[in-house]
Amino acid sequence: MSPSLVADVGGTNTRVALAEGPRVLAETIRRFRNADHPDLESVLRAFLAEAGVADCDAAAVAVAGPVRDGVGRLTNLDWALDRPTLARAARAERAVVLNDLQAQGHALGALDPSHIRAVVPGPTVEGPTARLVVGVGTGFNAAPVIDTERGERVVAASESGHAGLPVRTEAELRLSRFAARTHGFAEVEDVLSGPGLERVYAWLGEEAGDPRPATAGEIAAALARGEARAEEAARVFVGALGAVCGDLALIHLPFGGVFLVGGVARAFRDHLGPLGFAEAFRAKGRFSGFMETFAVHLIEDDYAALTGLASHLAGGAGRAP
Amino acid sequence: MSPSLVADVGGTNTRVALAEGPRVLAETIRRFRNADHPDLESVLRAFLAEAGVADCDAAAVAVAGPVRDGVGRLTNLDWALDRPTLARAARAERAVVLNDLQAQGHALGALDPSHIRAVVPGPTVEGPTARLVVGVGTGFNAAPVIDTERGERVVAASESGHAGLPVRTEAELRLSRFAARTHGFAEVEDVLSGPGLERVYAWLGEEAGDPRPATAGEIAAALARGEARAEEAARVFVGALGAVCGDLALIHLPFGGVFLVGGVARAFRDHLGPLGFAEAFRAKGRFSGFMETFAVHLIEDDYAALTGLASHLAGGAGRAP
Repeated sequence: MSPSLVADVGGTNTRVALAEGPRVLAETIRRFRNADHPDLESVLRAFLAEAGVADCDAAAVAVAGPVRDGVGRLTNLDWALDRPTLARAARAERAVVLNDLQAQGHALGALDPSHIRAVVPGPTVEGPTARLVVGVGTGFNAAPVIDTERGERVVAASESGHAGLPVRTEAELRLSRFAARTHGFAEVEDVLSGPGLERVYAWLGEEAGDPRPATAGEIAAALARGEARAEEAARVFVGALGAVCGDLALIHLPFGGVFLVGGVARAFRDHLGPLGFAEAFRAKGRFSGFMETFAVHLIEDDYAALTGLASHLAGGAGRAP
Repeated sequence: MSPSLVADVGGTNTRVALAEGPRVLAETIRRFRNADHPDLESVLRAFLAEAGVADCDAAAVAVAGPVRDGVGRLTNLDWALDRPTLARAARAERAVVLNDLQAQGHALGALDPSHIRAVVPGPTVEGPTARLVVGVGTGFNAAPVIDTERGERVVAASESGHAGLPVRTEAELRLSRFAARTHGFAEVEDVLSGPGLERVYAWLGEEAGDPRPATAGEIAAALARGEARAEEAARVFVGALGAVCGDLALIHLPFGGVFLVGGVARAFRDHLGPLGFAEAFRAKGRFSGFMETFAVHLIEDDYAALTGLASHLAGGAGRAP
């Protein structure tokens, strides 16, 4: 049987690999800079030519943007990301286009446990259940993962990052107003993303009458040095992340766990505990006890989306129903 | 073939009916006051004896409360609501216990269109898609309904009413603090429910320095008379309902529509348009245009949960996987 082709298209880079059944062949993973290529087709053809593969059993692409009716969109890249293009480029009969968070959802259960770190402890659940992937990177999104009693896995699409930012205090209301200056409405993503962290830092500067803009990388470095404003920005960020993840847990009831993914979530790895993630996650009044039902984990596998695509194809995705 | 038994257990009443396949036999619907019976089993036995039915092909119960691992719980009623009890009472091989909103979700597609009223217009979507049921009554909850490409219907459980109340203005922050007095955290349900409407009215009284508590029924009557405070309370309620439904639409992407159900939602039928539901639903900054993708409907069928249970059983629910 021919291998499958899996590709994870981000805003800057595309990672491509071959897979055999649900297993990504780690030695085949390659990274391409999108700017060096006119379109996805040329990336995939270059990859296959180098790998010496003529055609594929199936192909799947994860896109960091909304996917509807099999067509994916990236905010800052004008590439055609649809099934026919993908099928042609990979010479595959089956082709699937997924949102990247959905791909991460399909990876649950197929990841190396050494790449999963506990953030908030909770009971272990066996059997069909709901889980939730929460991605924090350039943007914010979430994907509920439901394993049905009939053995089907459903990973729903979402635009959770564009829902309203939670506000409970005067300070949070001021932050929300600061965030709303960008486009008239304070979204979750306006705080919970790389640019969001920069926005929180800028807001603290304005509050202090001492504006000092900084990039997310600079804030992370300042945090490591123990700089007060960076620490305060990180505390606001982690508190908002806990509150939003808690609300999403009440909405999706992921008794099988919440899984944080994405570069910004990983960058906060050692700060989630000390800066009060668990407390913010559980601060739901009379439901605070109920919130202890949910474990929260951090996925540290940078190639989880590729694994999810391989699992999804191995499960029969893209076959006629 | 024997008929199926379907029952909708609310806090005060239980409705019971027979069904043939997906169709509820309207002439068999009966309503029991829970206070008159020691447990669900006695209600179901009384119903079956009167109907002259000895045993059932299958039985399903909808519960106005959380269901986990086939066991349902009601806040103010100590009835056993689990599969074995239900199977025994109905002498049925298959027994299913669902949350009432999940039952409403299974009714989508099987309801008489004359019982569905447009609240916010939107495109009509054919084929497998996501829909969302939002229930506003004694409490608040939501249930995403996903029809998979393989023809399976997944209706996820949720506790959306206990997520945080959206706050965007000073006034909303004051309302949120007023609501948080009850149990330390301002939930969606603290405003969006019958008791929530009473809370909004009480808050407006406190703001005006003229407290005048009123029941939801009294507020509805005052609203019909054009009383100013009742109208303001209704405006706050409808604004919050629009904002919450909008956030849930971004979270669940119900391209097949949002469906409002429940007694309080129905009571607001003629006020949703005039009091700005659509505007509040779409007020998501740069995503306001995207929000026009979602139609919102009101289900006026009081027996929709029974229809959903019958559809769910007819689809094979409760069979060994």
